[in-house]
Amino acid sequence: MRLFHKRYHPPGTSPGTLVQAATPIAPRFRLVDYNGTQYREQDFTAPGECRPYLSADTVTWIHVQGNASPEAVRELGELLGLHELALEDTMNTGQRPKLEAYGDHIFAILNRPVLGEDSIRVEQVSLFAGARFLVSFHEGASDPFEPVRERLRRRAGLFTSRGSDYLLYSLIDLIIDAGFPLLEAVGERIEALDEQLVARPRRDTRVHIHQIKRELLLLRRMLWPQREVVNGLLRGDQALITPGARIYFRDCYDHTIQILDLIETYREMTASLLEMYIASVSNRLNDIMRVLTVISTLFIPLTFITGIYGMNFDNPQSPWSMPELRWYYGYPFVWLVIIATVIGLLVFFKRRKWW
Amino acid sequence: MRLFHKRYHPPGTSPGTLVQAATPIAPRFRLVDYNGTQYREQDFTAPGECRPYLSADTVTWIHVQGNASPEAVRELGELLGLHELALEDTMNTGQRPKLEAYGDHIFAILNRPVLGEDSIRVEQVSLFAGARFLVSFHEGASDPFEPVRERLRRRAGLFTSRGSDYLLYSLIDLIIDAGFPLLEAVGERIEALDEQLVARPRRDTRVHIHQIKRELLLLRRMLWPQREVVNGLLRGDQALITPGARIYFRDCYDHTIQILDLIETYREMTASLLEMYIASVSNRLNDIMRVLTVISTLFIPLTFITGIYGMNFDNPQSPWSMPELRWYYGYPFVWLVIIATVIGLLVFFKRRKWW
Amino acid sequence: MRLFHKRYHPPGTSPGTLVQAATPIAPRFRLVDYNGTQYREQDFTAPGECRPYLSADTVTWIHVQGNASPEAVRELGELLGLHELALEDTMNTGQRPKLEAYGDHIFAILNRPVLGEDSIRVEQVSLFAGARFLVSFHEGASDPFEPVRERLRRRAGLFTSRGSDYLLYSLIDLIIDAGFPLLEAVGERIEALDEQLVARPRRDTRVHIHQIKRELLLLRRMLWPQREVVNGLLRGDQALITPGARIYFRDCYDHTIQILDLIETYREMTASLLEMYIASVSNRLNDIMRVLTVISTLFIPLTFITGIYGMNFDNPQSPWSMPELRWYYGYPFVWLVIIATVIGLLVFFKRRKWW
Amino acid sequence: MRLFHKRYHPPGTSPGTLVQAATPIAPRFRLVDYNGTQYREQDFTAPGECRPYLSADTVTWIHVQGNASPEAVRELGELLGLHELALEDTMNTGQRPKLEAYGDHIFAILNRPVLGEDSIRVEQVSLFAGARFLVSFHEGASDPFEPVRERLRRRAGLFTSRGSDYLLYSLIDLIIDAGFPLLEAVGERIEALDEQLVARPRRDTRVHIHQIKRELLLLRRMLWPQREVVNGLLRGDQALITPGARIYFRDCYDHTIQILDLIETYREMTASLLEMYIASVSNRLNDIMRVLTVISTLFIPLTFITGIYGMNFDNPQSPWSMPELRWYYGYPFVWLVIIATVIGLLVFFKRRKWW
Amino acid sequence: MRLFHKRYHPPGTSPGTLVQAATPIAPRFRLVDYNGTQYREQDFTAPGECRPYLSADTVTWIHVQGNASPEAVRELGELLGLHELALEDTMNTGQRPKLEAYGDHIFAILNRPVLGEDSIRVEQVSLFAGARFLVSFHEGASDPFEPVRERLRRRAGLFTSRGSDYLLYSLIDLIIDAGFPLLEAVGERIEALDEQLVARPRRDTRVHIHQIKRELLLLRRMLWPQREVVNGLLRGDQALITPGARIYFRDCYDHTIQILDLIETYREMTASLLEMYIASVSNRLNDIMRVLTVISTLFIPLTFITGIYGMNFDNPQSPWSMPELRWYYGYPFVWLVIIATVIGLLVFFKRRKWW
Repeated sequence: MRLFHKRYHPPGTSPGTLVQAATPIAPRFRLVDYNGTQYREQDFTAPGECRPYLSADTVTWIHVQGNASPEAVRELGELLGLHELALEDTMNTGQRPKLEAYGDHIFAILNRPVLGEDSIRVEQVSLFAGARFLVSFHEGASDPFEPVRERLRRRAGLFTSRGSDYLLYSLIDLIIDAGFPLLEAVGERIEALDEQLVARPRRDTRVHIHQIKRELLLLRRMLWPQREVVNGLLRGDQALITPGARIYFRDCYDHTIQILDLIETYREMTASLLEMYIASVSNRLNDIMRVLTVISTLFIPLTFITGIYGMNFDNPQSPWSMPELRWYYGYPFVWLVIIATVIGLLVFFKRRKWW
Repeated sequence: MRLFHKRYHPPGTSPGTLVQAATPIAPRFRLVDYNGTQYREQDFTAPGECRPYLSADTVTWIHVQGNASPEAVRELGELLGLHELALEDTMNTGQRPKLEAYGDHIFAILNRPVLGEDSIRVEQVSLFAGARFLVSFHEGASDPFEPVRERLRRRAGLFTSRGSDYLLYSLIDLIIDAGFPLLEAVGERIEALDEQLVARPRRDTRVHIHQIKRELLLLRRMLWPQREVVNGLLRGDQALITPGARIYFRDCYDHTIQILDLIETYREMTASLLEMYIASVSNRLNDIMRVLTVISTLFIPLTFITGIYGMNFDNPQSPWSMPELRWYYGYPFVWLVIIATVIGLLVFFKRRKWW
Repeated sequence: MRLFHKRYHPPGTSPGTLVQAATPIAPRFRLVDYNGTQYREQDFTAPGECRPYLSADTVTWIHVQGNASPEAVRELGELLGLHELALEDTMNTGQRPKLEAYGDHIFAILNRPVLGEDSIRVEQVSLFAGARFLVSFHEGASDPFEPVRERLRRRAGLFTSRGSDYLLYSLIDLIIDAGFPLLEAVGERIEALDEQLVARPRRDTRVHIHQIKRELLLLRRMLWPQREVVNGLLRGDQALITPGARIYFRDCYDHTIQILDLIETYREMTASLLEMYIASVSNRLNDIMRVLTVISTLFIPLTFITGIYGMNFDNPQSPWSMPELRWYYGYPFVWLVIIATVIGLLVFFKRRKWW
Repeated sequence: MRLFHKRYHPPGTSPGTLVQAATPIAPRFRLVDYNGTQYREQDFTAPGECRPYLSADTVTWIHVQGNASPEAVRELGELLGLHELALEDTMNTGQRPKLEAYGDHIFAILNRPVLGEDSIRVEQVSLFAGARFLVSFHEGASDPFEPVRERLRRRAGLFTSRGSDYLLYSLIDLIIDAGFPLLEAVGERIEALDEQLVARPRRDTRVHIHQIKRELLLLRRMLWPQREVVNGLLRGDQALITPGARIYFRDCYDHTIQILDLIETYREMTASLLEMYIASVSNRLNDIMRVLTVISTLFIPLTFITGIYGMNFDNPQSPWSMPELRWYYGYPFVWLVIIATVIGLLVFFKRRKWW
Repeated sequence: MRLFHKRYHPPGTSPGTLVQAATPIAPRFRLVDYNGTQYREQDFTAPGECRPYLSADTVTWIHVQGNASPEAVRELGELLGLHELALEDTMNTGQRPKLEAYGDHIFAILNRPVLGEDSIRVEQVSLFAGARFLVSFHEGASDPFEPVRERLRRRAGLFTSRGSDYLLYSLIDLIIDAGFPLLEAVGERIEALDEQLVARPRRDTRVHIHQIKRELLLLRRMLWPQREVVNGLLRGDQALITPGARIYFRDCYDHTIQILDLIETYREMTASLLEMYIASVSNRLNDIMRVLTVISTLFIPLTFITGIYGMNFDNPQSPWSMPELRWYYGYPFVWLVIIATVIGLLVFFKRRKWW
């Protein structure tokens, strides 16, 4: 995930300007229309096609997958009376999650966390919910809402007999719960690093810890405001959400908190891992230096002793001219000195507990 | 304790889906039914058996120990009018503690800290409390509520003559107070590490500090929300809790705060221990390097001096050809130079306060 | 950006004292006057010239670019009834952003972030907004509001038919959105440092991380209070802002939050980079020391062995006088000892996983 | 001060159970009874003895010093209508400070900081205050309230003519102000460590900093909640505290804040001292390594040079067999090489600013 | 500035006890009495002398410079009806800033930051303000309020025609604005350290950073509560402050916030400087060790080689007795080995990018 991945217009652009996204994911428009007794599903190409469904006494769900053209988005916006600033935020992905009330409908932006091959990323989901309609935009390539459609087809649960608030709950629940398998995977990576650090840290442990830290930092930034979004839906001031649905949003809020809580815990854990890594690097340096010091301290004095007797003082007239070299037990005496030095130093090391 | 130990359904599952837990702890259902004058206790196998007790004017306490089957949980839920989302949270253990009001009853999740053999873990306790009934679920193998049952049997205190709120208080008090012996044990481990660090840090001190940090981090995550749960019971907006019982819940809240306070203090303490460990590793490196430097600095110049007079310049025609070797006092002179060098260096070290 | 870049009067100066700024940027006064049907634009030299426009039923926007003289500012203040303390803050640049209500008009100070050649700086913008007038002061050399004037000339959007609140929104939006390209650039610098640290840290990486940290610290200080300014405009207690304009200020607030959020994320990221840098320096020290230790530990004992046999014990009468030197296989034997020592040490290093 | 020093009952004990403390400090009961005109003081052995004083229109202050027996505490509680949970907290010392209202009286727990010989500890003071009585429990050996009794005897100040709220203020003021001399002493220890670190850090500086950190951490934990206690007395919702006394409690609150403020400042100061200690250890390591490197780098190459000419190549037939040894100026030439090497290395060190 | 510099009485002293300060700065009493038409200034020795001025319909400002005697303070207090606790705080300097309302007058303590020769300190200013009088106490030697008196004499601004609230504002503004030149000086010291760290850190940089940290820590402690004091004056609940003066106190509040904001920024900056210092010390250690390692690794193996051929194996009967020494090209061959070793090691270092 990039540090900065928000699309924005050059400062000074008129508010409500819509511009085609650069990445070319062909859009797909999917309409689902249902009430307690009937269910219809249809793909369409122009927003105008869904106008007949909107007037009927059913819940109409229009899902826009991929990057729709500015014209299509604007047409959809005019059809349903959506605000230009909301449509701009829908197209400029990389927004913070937020919830905004616009008279008869609400507008919510959420981020769906996705576990990619070697990193975590988020995909923006924009939701417009009115009393009898729901419009969802998803910036990615694959449609994440198929399980909801499947449950609608099977008429599972209390879905079909209720209003758009239950549908809204189902979509938001799906987006938020996508965090659980992802955080389970991250948790396993942290556990693996933890075990590695206790056993034997490796050179790239540092880089792995940093990468997890970075991913958690960015994930937290993109998910943290979701707490406020779900809390806003839960509070009593949204007429759209019926009291019966509110219990379900309360469950959603609970999951949001659990996910943010896990992210915070993981962040503290990685901070602790890094501290332990640094402590272990220091420890290792101590080990290395201890070996160097023991070896050097043992042999450097001995080499000095042998150096003494390697000197060539040989004035035959002088009795001071290295008489040791000519002693009968000179050589064994030197060995005695060497051995005594070694023993002395070993005792010194032992006292300092260097092994 | 694992970093991620929450059970969850695949995203997109219908809300209220109940699935059997993987770990096979055979469930046990225990019913206690009492009022001011009578006390009955019975084990049962199907939730339907406790129906007769529910209608009577007594407090009926059903305790489910271990992993009940989805069918039994659903039957119990229907018998008492419990919400499907609450039952789902009861079966998917690893939840954050929370308190939820459902019309005529309240639902609370608490975590009971347990000191295992070499680590700390928490066990989820789910409580449903209505005016005349209380249902408790505990995920572990052994029943923690036996002391309450014992007090009920002995008709100790003001228990038996009061409503289910006093029973609820007794259970929650038991769960929360389980933290005190556990934190006393952790405190002793920290004190031991503290003493070890002042006296002589060991190689694995680093790992022990990290383990305590990790345990405290996870424990805090699982216990922190309990503050809000008990506070919610204490506040005036729960009709279930009578004013007389509220003083007892205030005591409970006090204990919760004390436990969280201790956890925070321990966390700061372990952070301080780690800092001290790192400072002591640095100190130790300094000691090692000082010894190496003193020895090397003493003997390397001396070895050079002996090297000089170990050279074989022996052009007999040249008066420049190492005349020192042939001086009468050459060898004692070299020793003088060596001793002077040693003294000079020792003075240098002394000035730098290297011992 | 300097740590302290506020202009202030010596303590004890009378409140409302106006003093010419030291940096000589010649001021420029630009007047724009428009309503739903007409648009006029004019430069003027003395504030008195704009008096006729003020009485008309149009929105009158006076923009002061550069450092105006105290006399001109005071004249403008008297013309429009601006408070002496507000005028003092307008001239003493380097203020914190703030919003103040003065009876019939509001006074806002904002900071516009600018990406200079090798650093980030902010320029103070002061805004006075009444029902039918708007006065803006900008301390820099170039006029940042030309895009707004261009949109007014083209009569783009709903601008021209609305009051001064829409004009105020346009100016504030421009100031705040200037943060996005700037933070995109900073984000790229952080990404580059991140890659450099994973691949191979350089000596000056430390200085670059510190510089980014410093810039983000100062940027946050100058932008953080803008949140409160825009929030103050958004709340219902400012009669000047009509409900229709409030949705636009909500969008502004959203952008302010996104920018502050990015700054916080970047700050945590640079803190993490510094930690990784320190860990990598420690790692590198370990590598260096390992090589030193391996080489020293290999060769210092060998040098001792050769030193032994370089001694000149040559008492021909003594059988103890280095008999090895005269052994038939003495020299190959020494090589055997050397090779055995090397192999032993290599096995020791291997066991410690030193490569 | 121990990390965990709270007395608690095994989980599952009935609420309100009273158990004799293990440490045997014989209790002492002291009664003071006064009003505007009279003053009586008496020691007693059984709580029942003070019953006659309670009914009179005087302020009756019963002070229990040391560890009273459960029976005496229970009798006192029944005499004055004290709640069983409050009595339990009174006997189980090591509680957090707290304030609780019980109908006609209030119950407060405070911690009195005491500067022991080599560490800081706190002693629990429990206070029950009604309209005409005050009961105080103090767990230590010596009575800290003698100065108040002395002032009562001398009828100093406005004491004697007022109600129990002035007495309560005097006791709380005494407990809280005990923090000032203690923190003055801690401040002096920190100043001494600061000076030591600037001049010359010692080996045990690390341990001293850690000990002060630990003491401040525990002190803060035990004193922090006192802020809420005094604030609770200060707020208007306690009928017991008359408006005239409230100004005195405001002064008390002020002192509480000053003490907590000092503790926080000291904590930041010790954190800064530890950072400086670590920086100074690193600096010192650099110094040591610089000396080692300069000496090694100077002499190791020189030793190599002398090693060259210590080799015994002496094939008289070969002109390649170390001809230097037989040059006329061979030996002075070697000295030239040595001196040139030394000068070159010294210039190199100078350039790197190694001295 | 000392860590602990509060004067306090021994715990147990009666509230409102006044004791002469130890440091003997002879007090000076200065009276200023003015209204819209007249201005009188007079020094006096006994508080009773100012009694006639108090009854007149003028603003009477009594300034007490230095350490007044307890008797004079008590007399002044009785003359104006000041509370004994407020007088005690006035004499016991080193208080936290605070604002207290006493019926018809308010009492404020502020700290005036002063830049001494080599450190920062604060001086306590105590202010009592009633409808028609103002009493100020300043503990230092020189009178900081002369500029206000000068403006009063010149009848500058709207001073003289207004009540004591404008005078109070002028004094508080002077005290608070004293922070700006001081923080400008601190900012320059930090900038200088920053440049030094980028260029070349020095040994005492560590101590300088620590000293600035300490000064900022203490300064923040003494100034932080001033925010609440000025905010308290600004809020509507003080009858003394007229709405017209409130705008001026709002400006004061703004300056207080700016100063605290700067202190926080400086604190983060010094923390960042310390991190950079530690990183630079580590870097420098790496440099030193690299040089040591390169030199040692180059010459230690070479010395071993020369050691080999310095051995004295000279059994003339043995063909194994160092035949190399007698080879025709033995000596050049050794040089070849030496040069090859050096080149090999240089390539190894090059690959590791050690230069």
